[in-house]
Amino acid sequence: MSQSISARSRVRRLPGRGMYDRAVIYKILDEALICHIGFVADGQPFVIPTIHARRDDTLLLHGAAASRMLKHIQQGNPICVETTLLDGLVIARGVFHNSMNYRSVVLFGVGRLLVNAAEKFEALHVLTDRVFPGRWSDSRAPSAKEMKMTSIIEFTIESASAKMRAGGPKDDASDYDQAWWAGVIPAEQKFHAPVPDEKLGAGIPTPSYLKKYKR
Amino acid sequence: MSQSISARSRVRRLPGRGMYDRAVIYKILDEALICHIGFVADGQPFVIPTIHARRDDTLLLHGAAASRMLKHIQQGNPICVETTLLDGLVIARGVFHNSMNYRSVVLFGVGRLLVNAAEKFEALHVLTDRVFPGRWSDSRAPSAKEMKMTSIIEFTIESASAKMRAGGPKDDASDYDQAWWAGVIPAEQKFHAPVPDEKLGAGIPTPSYLKKYKR
Repeated sequence: MSQSISARSRVRRLPGRGMYDRAVIYKILDEALICHIGFVADGQPFVIPTIHARRDDTLLLHGAAASRMLKHIQQGNPICVETTLLDGLVIARGVFHNSMNYRSVVLFGVGRLLVNAAEKFEALHVLTDRVFPGRWSDSRAPSAKEMKMTSIIEFTIESASAKMRAGGPKDDASDYDQAWWAGVIPAEQKFHAPVPDEKLGAGIPTPSYLKKYKR
Repeated sequence: MSQSISARSRVRRLPGRGMYDRAVIYKILDEALICHIGFVADGQPFVIPTIHARRDDTLLLHGAAASRMLKHIQQGNPICVETTLLDGLVIARGVFHNSMNYRSVVLFGVGRLLVNAAEKFEALHVLTDRVFPGRWSDSRAPSAKEMKMTSIIEFTIESASAKMRAGGPKDDASDYDQAWWAGVIPAEQKFHAPVPDEKLGAGIPTPSYLKKYKR
């Protein structure tokens, strides 16, 4: 637990510091499946959830070509991308000290629409294999028509910060003698065993790359 | 599965429709622990994760009195609140049809700072017991000093929409004869058994309201 707490302090003390933070931020982004994209239209903030895949210092985002959010991003408007991994609920003796264990990142930058067909196809390949490693070559690639219906944005991370908490509750000294329980309820994003489609043909086994899925 | 798919269609067909949607939206908000708050400062969008608790058609949000986000909200600026529950990864025969099962809500509105001490105290009571039902009366209530260090915002939901997907993959007719596996990897936010604080006094049992925690 002391190790976790020290990890937290380390990150808090080093906001924006070169490689170390970059590695931390990348790790959180790669574990997270969903991110939350903030954008502004007519002064009104919007937040939309979407799947993402990191490629170097960019995130690949995709959706319907008609998506308002993707159109907004491809116009060069600034966006904010946030994602949070919940690691636990921290229950302290004093209500004031209740907390959560988590790892979150907030990114700022702009995106560009991929227009080159080969570049777009390759981005979908990366996106697919980042979510399901090995799946691209074991499924039907997108048709030309499907490619046309899909927009892919390459978002470049211009600035980023990570925030995290780990470890047990930190109570006031005078509360440790009291009889209130205190501790942590660990939390995780759990993935269960794959459930075959009802229409799956007989004799098609679950691919090994999908068994025991985790991120 | 057909039941889930029909639930999805139902919600999509009824954006903004009175009570039915309200019940759906409330259920998602009450299950979710973390929401993502979007706000605008100098034209730049920001998204910050935070814990929330619903009270009627409001969300209670809290944080350090020094929090930039809370200060921004209490000035009456419009915000967007989004939360998403991940229910599964949908693996289709065609890459284009890969998807996710999820339930998300997007809310718009403004917030006000609670200034009345009794109102603020009661809001913290609600917040605590929404996260850990029964905990408030089994822990130390906030001191006057702690109350001063905490800001509580009551965010009123002015408009809201829910979006969800459930069920298996929906592939092109011609792909069903192929030998690609297809199905769903169910996902859930899992909470494990409570882990006592290292400094917990001997003989203090885990409270029943914290065992088998789920939302």
